[in-house]
Amino acid sequence: MHDNPIIPVVLCGGSGTRLWPRSRKAMPKPFLPLVGERTLFEATLDRVGGHPFGQPIIVAGAAHVPAIVAQAGKNVQIVVEPSAKNTAPAIALAAGLLPADAIMLVCPSDHHIADSAAFAAAAVAAAGLAVDDWMVAFGIAPNRPETGFGYIRIGEPLAEGYRIDRFVEKPDRSLAERFLTEGGYAWNGGIFAFRAGAFLDELRTHRPEMAALILRAVDEGMRDGAHFHPGADAFGAIAGESVDYAVMENAARAAVVPVDMGWSDVGNWEALRDARTGDSNGNRVRGRADVLDCRNVLIDTDGPRVSVVGLDDVIVVVDGDEILVTSAHGAQLVGKLPGAANQ
Amino acid sequence: MHDNPIIPVVLCGGSGTRLWPRSRKAMPKPFLPLVGERTLFEATLDRVGGHPFGQPIIVAGAAHVPAIVAQAGKNVQIVVEPSAKNTAPAIALAAGLLPADAIMLVCPSDHHIADSAAFAAAAVAAAGLAVDDWMVAFGIAPNRPETGFGYIRIGEPLAEGYRIDRFVEKPDRSLAERFLTEGGYAWNGGIFAFRAGAFLDELRTHRPEMAALILRAVDEGMRDGAHFHPGADAFGAIAGESVDYAVMENAARAAVVPVDMGWSDVGNWEALRDARTGDSNGNRVRGRADVLDCRNVLIDTDGPRVSVVGLDDVIVVVDGDEILVTSAHGAQLVGKLPGAANQ
Repeated sequence: MHDNPIIPVVLCGGSGTRLWPRSRKAMPKPFLPLVGERTLFEATLDRVGGHPFGQPIIVAGAAHVPAIVAQAGKNVQIVVEPSAKNTAPAIALAAGLLPADAIMLVCPSDHHIADSAAFAAAAVAAAGLAVDDWMVAFGIAPNRPETGFGYIRIGEPLAEGYRIDRFVEKPDRSLAERFLTEGGYAWNGGIFAFRAGAFLDELRTHRPEMAALILRAVDEGMRDGAHFHPGADAFGAIAGESVDYAVMENAARAAVVPVDMGWSDVGNWEALRDARTGDSNGNRVRGRADVLDCRNVLIDTDGPRVSVVGLDDVIVVVDGDEILVTSAHGAQLVGKLPGAANQ
Repeated sequence: MHDNPIIPVVLCGGSGTRLWPRSRKAMPKPFLPLVGERTLFEATLDRVGGHPFGQPIIVAGAAHVPAIVAQAGKNVQIVVEPSAKNTAPAIALAAGLLPADAIMLVCPSDHHIADSAAFAAAAVAAAGLAVDDWMVAFGIAPNRPETGFGYIRIGEPLAEGYRIDRFVEKPDRSLAERFLTEGGYAWNGGIFAFRAGAFLDELRTHRPEMAALILRAVDEGMRDGAHFHPGADAFGAIAGESVDYAVMENAARAAVVPVDMGWSDVGNWEALRDARTGDSNGNRVRGRADVLDCRNVLIDTDGPRVSVVGLDDVIVVVDGDEILVTSAHGAQLVGKLPGAANQ
């Protein structure tokens, strides 16, 4: 255990095509009230407000700064990425700006977590491992044979978690079913804890070029009130890579803290449907709507009345002059629609 | 056979709730271009334009007169019903205004008929029987075990058709399937041929009170250019009844002319979907729309783009501030939606 506050590092990225037309480039997924009345970003900050958490650092592109300021206030610390380089450089920027002994908790800003207490308990456990220089991933308890996530095979027990036996790329359906039956696997939900100095040490070992460019970008950066602008030349020269590939899969001391906290990546309209609470027929309605002989239907309209008859597992979204009607299963294809792709 | 023109009597009625939200009280089904570019009413007039047909008589409520004049011109003959009394009184009004020897062809204004030549041939055959005072119904060739229509059992052959053996109320599914397997049955499509005088004779025999009130309403009526306004007191006193109940089922000389002419009553969105031509996947699109992994989907939008993913046999209709999404099977329930019922 440790007594210093855990510093939330909140990542704001993503293009928002899979939740089109509600999520659009101009107002992407983190900044929309998709599950409750708070936006996913606001709920992320709520979750890390107060003990045992310290003041958060937001890492985001310039395009997202107005939405962040509108929802978190003008005093919130923002690291403004000069370009999008995936998660490893984003996390490394925050690590480079923090004291070496700071414990960081990396949180995506566009996930839904129903059980905040379970989240906080896992954060404390993960921080306890991070103090000892473990690279720590949250291991989300899987409840279905999902083929869209990476898996973590849980290894031998540690003081407050487990050693990571290995990472498994997105499996096919039969492998995912085997993982679920066998047990001992968790989803990699993109939530991590690191000691800042230890993270940079790992990066130096496995990605020395990236580590050098990050330190240069921090050195050449400019502070503007609560906003930090890393040097654009150095940051732009980085080859973008995920933290999973750049650090986690290479770390000698990689740990997982299993957690069951009602987590969803809200990765498409079906996941969003499931994250919302339904009526006795499983129907979820936002806005003016009537349903007749329907089950597990999601309706979300910003204006016109939507009347749905005789359908199960169908999603209807109305956003201005765009109307999406998809099967729950088809929701994964929404990003390929002309409307979503050509924003 | 006979040489006088056949007088089309075009009935405009119906509330249009089953094709809501496109069809509304203010602009109901006959006056919308639902199948082709012409409205169903225009297509009905097109079908009876020229030899062997004479000038049509339209029978309609006052609310429909502006739409009729807009689509058929101000010189078209309209009998303006003071109130809605179902088909027997509407037809009787036309019969009372025509010479006794006129041959009437009663045509609903809200059906789709793909094969106009087959329609005209059947009209000539029906007129040949009507000259001899047969009460003649078109017998639509059935192509599915439909439970929403009345059936006609075809009897012994006549010169240009068949005696009607009996009328059968809307059957249940198993009976409808038996009719289709056995053969010898036709759908009653609401298209009839009568000699005007013979029709009124039958009405006098079977519905003497209605016949007397119709003749009074004609006597007390007022002509206003091409429009005839029957006496409202007499017409209002009539007990409304369908021509099937009031005349056809009671007539001693009832005949049927079988016809296969691509007929549809366009009775709901599923029927309308089937009446339109689909692409290679059976999808029918009007307006801005994209489909992905869909089959037999109907999209009809008056403005917003509609994107549909992963659905079969689903209908999406956008009309102003109302959006309908229904399964093809559920289309029969559309009239029960709050939006359709509370116009």
